[in-house]
Amino acid sequence: MNVRLVLKTMGKLLVLEAILLLLPLLVSLIAKENTWLSFVTPIACLVGVGLPLSFIKLKERKMYIREGFVIVAFTWILYSLVGAVPFVMSGSIPKYENALFEMVSGFTTTGASILSNVEALPKSMLFWRSFSHWIGGMGVLVFVLAILPKSDSGAVHMFRAESPGPNVGKLVSKLKSTALILYAIYAVMTLVMFVMLAPCPEVSAFDSLLISFGAAGTGGFAPTNASIGAFNSVYVEMVVAVFMFLFSLNFNFYYLLLMRQFKKAFRSEEIIGYFAIVVGATLAIALNIMDSCANFGEAIRYSFFHVTSISSTTGFTSLDYNSWPLFSKVLILMLTAIGACAGSTGGGLKMARMIIMGKSTVGDIRKLSRPRQVITLRYEGEVLDDATIRNTRVVVVSWLFCLVGTTLLLSLDSYANGDMLTNFSAALTCLANVGPGLNGVGPAANFSGFSTFSKLMLSFDMLAGRLEFLPIIALFRPKTWTRA
Amino acid sequence: MNVRLVLKTMGKLLVLEAILLLLPLLVSLIAKENTWLSFVTPIACLVGVGLPLSFIKLKERKMYIREGFVIVAFTWILYSLVGAVPFVMSGSIPKYENALFEMVSGFTTTGASILSNVEALPKSMLFWRSFSHWIGGMGVLVFVLAILPKSDSGAVHMFRAESPGPNVGKLVSKLKSTALILYAIYAVMTLVMFVMLAPCPEVSAFDSLLISFGAAGTGGFAPTNASIGAFNSVYVEMVVAVFMFLFSLNFNFYYLLLMRQFKKAFRSEEIIGYFAIVVGATLAIALNIMDSCANFGEAIRYSFFHVTSISSTTGFTSLDYNSWPLFSKVLILMLTAIGACAGSTGGGLKMARMIIMGKSTVGDIRKLSRPRQVITLRYEGEVLDDATIRNTRVVVVSWLFCLVGTTLLLSLDSYANGDMLTNFSAALTCLANVGPGLNGVGPAANFSGFSTFSKLMLSFDMLAGRLEFLPIIALFRPKTWTRA
Repeated sequence: MNVRLVLKTMGKLLVLEAILLLLPLLVSLIAKENTWLSFVTPIACLVGVGLPLSFIKLKERKMYIREGFVIVAFTWILYSLVGAVPFVMSGSIPKYENALFEMVSGFTTTGASILSNVEALPKSMLFWRSFSHWIGGMGVLVFVLAILPKSDSGAVHMFRAESPGPNVGKLVSKLKSTALILYAIYAVMTLVMFVMLAPCPEVSAFDSLLISFGAAGTGGFAPTNASIGAFNSVYVEMVVAVFMFLFSLNFNFYYLLLMRQFKKAFRSEEIIGYFAIVVGATLAIALNIMDSCANFGEAIRYSFFHVTSISSTTGFTSLDYNSWPLFSKVLILMLTAIGACAGSTGGGLKMARMIIMGKSTVGDIRKLSRPRQVITLRYEGEVLDDATIRNTRVVVVSWLFCLVGTTLLLSLDSYANGDMLTNFSAALTCLANVGPGLNGVGPAANFSGFSTFSKLMLSFDMLAGRLEFLPIIALFRPKTWTRA
Repeated sequence: MNVRLVLKTMGKLLVLEAILLLLPLLVSLIAKENTWLSFVTPIACLVGVGLPLSFIKLKERKMYIREGFVIVAFTWILYSLVGAVPFVMSGSIPKYENALFEMVSGFTTTGASILSNVEALPKSMLFWRSFSHWIGGMGVLVFVLAILPKSDSGAVHMFRAESPGPNVGKLVSKLKSTALILYAIYAVMTLVMFVMLAPCPEVSAFDSLLISFGAAGTGGFAPTNASIGAFNSVYVEMVVAVFMFLFSLNFNFYYLLLMRQFKKAFRSEEIIGYFAIVVGATLAIALNIMDSCANFGEAIRYSFFHVTSISSTTGFTSLDYNSWPLFSKVLILMLTAIGACAGSTGGGLKMARMIIMGKSTVGDIRKLSRPRQVITLRYEGEVLDDATIRNTRVVVVSWLFCLVGTTLLLSLDSYANGDMLTNFSAALTCLANVGPGLNGVGPAANFSGFSTFSKLMLSFDMLAGRLEFLPIIALFRPKTWTRA
């Protein structure tokens, strides 16, 4: 472990968080809120600690994958630990454990909240809360990659550790320029969404910005208690739904479109599979909820909005789907687990992993009867190598392990009061970075009732889900900490 | 596909079922019940169809694995289809769909019932119902192997297709004698259990026999509405609990004991792991339910009985654990999924698979950082080959796929009335061949309320779980049906 390199990079990243905190500070000053000190204090601390660290002299500049993993894992944890301070100092969220949960939920783009009255928060706090989605969405380190001038070979490892999904391989080759392009797509799409929402009479410009942050990062924090349902506008719901869908597609798709490789873009197995799931689930739920809707159009409206919200792992809502029939609720849980496309800002197991698991299982079945046959699996036109399949398996198994373990340990918490579905859906929605679950953590409820231990465990799940386990596993391996 | 060989073997097996049906016929005659015709009719049909088939002349005697799979799958289906007839003819279970569910549940040693008043059944029917567990427990075909004189190489494939668990390899080498030994162990242990129960004043000799059948096959049908709770005897509960545990151990353990290889027997990773889980779960549940018990001894009594019952996948109950705290119920579901040892009469995913999945995941994690490192995994002192790991993965993935799919489709059934846990635990308990689930399919409830479609789907799950998917997958592969 190259400790100096880790400390130096962490130092730079802490200073970056200070810079990011300037924006909510600005909001605080413009809105003339008495919350400015809540931002200035952590900014001062971040600069005070980060700046000296960033001047550490290196003996060895090369970054290996384990340094990348450690930096990534610690960055998300530190960002959340510091990011929670303004909420506590301003009194918006008095308890630190709750503020921490909210910030982990923000940076991991989960959107699970402990707040029962969001609208009571000062504007600067609402801004910081939603802005954390936008920062987390594309990954703090892709951010760094895109704006900091120095990019060395180690950045590849950070990018790999950070970037959601198993198949970033192709993008990594031209890392620096690719990151810039991805980041530009992200920013432009957010801007377009904002421009489409802002003129809408039902939504203020400020709310439009926050909703755009939430959708872009596939986070799900809304500035309103009733989430998107508060605006009661078909136009707003459809704009948000379409953008949630767009942000949950593999960004490689947009990259290919920009490169004018339309055929390749539209032939992507992941895009086709994801599209099929969204369309299929929308129709299935619409048919299932039709009895409670005025007409099929209304059923499609609610179904499409929530299918895109859940499958993109955003978690915005426009009604309480807890009252939907059981079939729709099981589908919601399945969409939660499957999640978005790899290489998007979304969470969940990822469509790419579903396809790879499916293909490798079919390959395994074929090999059962002909063990010596050489079977070459292909994904997105390229040969699926063993490393990718192994990585996929490790993530899926770790996921299931955490899901079952969290459900078991949450059952000791008195909050759910004997309701297993509350606990199971809480564990699932946190791991998948969606936000709302069912029953006691459904769209109309929040996570504040859980014990401190439960909140910390769910925060761990959010981090593990967002970082896709590998950096977390690395932290717990003794080998990571031995000298190189 | 060697159709002649399949038909000939199936013919023999149908005659065998006719022979097995002679026993309940005998009970019917002794008890002077008017149910004898309900047994004579299917016996006549089985002999009428089976005997001519068994005289088919073969061109090719060699049996390959696909013939083995097809025979196994069809045998379990046909045995259930025919075995259900006596219940319908005698009027004990008027609807054929219900009788079929009960028989599939019997032969697969699940023990999930559609009967609300078991005690109203004639003795011959109760006998046939419990006897099906005993037949199913060790596998119809191991039975055949042990009593029929002709054993050819193909029997290996039948044994492999049939025998629960991934690691029968070692036993197969001396197949004929091994099968005889296993069968002898099975019969002797059943007899010992019967002898220990029969003198007990609380239980009649007839009930003792039926309970012994249920425990030996790890089935769970009891001749009483309140299952083992009906006898209200600590002695009975403890005898049953200990034997459920013994029948859920890998029979290789007893084989090694007989061969005086004590060291090897007690060093088995699977036995140690399984023992640890049973002890750990017993203590955890005892501590969790203590508030509702008179003292810790009583808590241990109920906890130990139900932990052995569920982890052996028997499903006998002595109280309604639906009223237990949530933590205990989540543990019950986890024990349901894990199941018994491989090579036992139990179901579930099997302890061996848990260990193999764990080891291969750790191997995968180690390979993540050093992809070119050669990692040799060992299980029970031998090298874990790729084929075993692949087989394990296929079963686990198929299992999860069926679990989620069944839960989704059951949610369209009005029975559960919006309760996801009823459906999920129904799917889980059927796949794992346990019997009772939670809520609407808990110990105090039964499966009769489900629709015909749901019952068929759950029957499929019981079969798929019992046959461990591979024969079922074989049935659905076009390749199985092409000419050799």
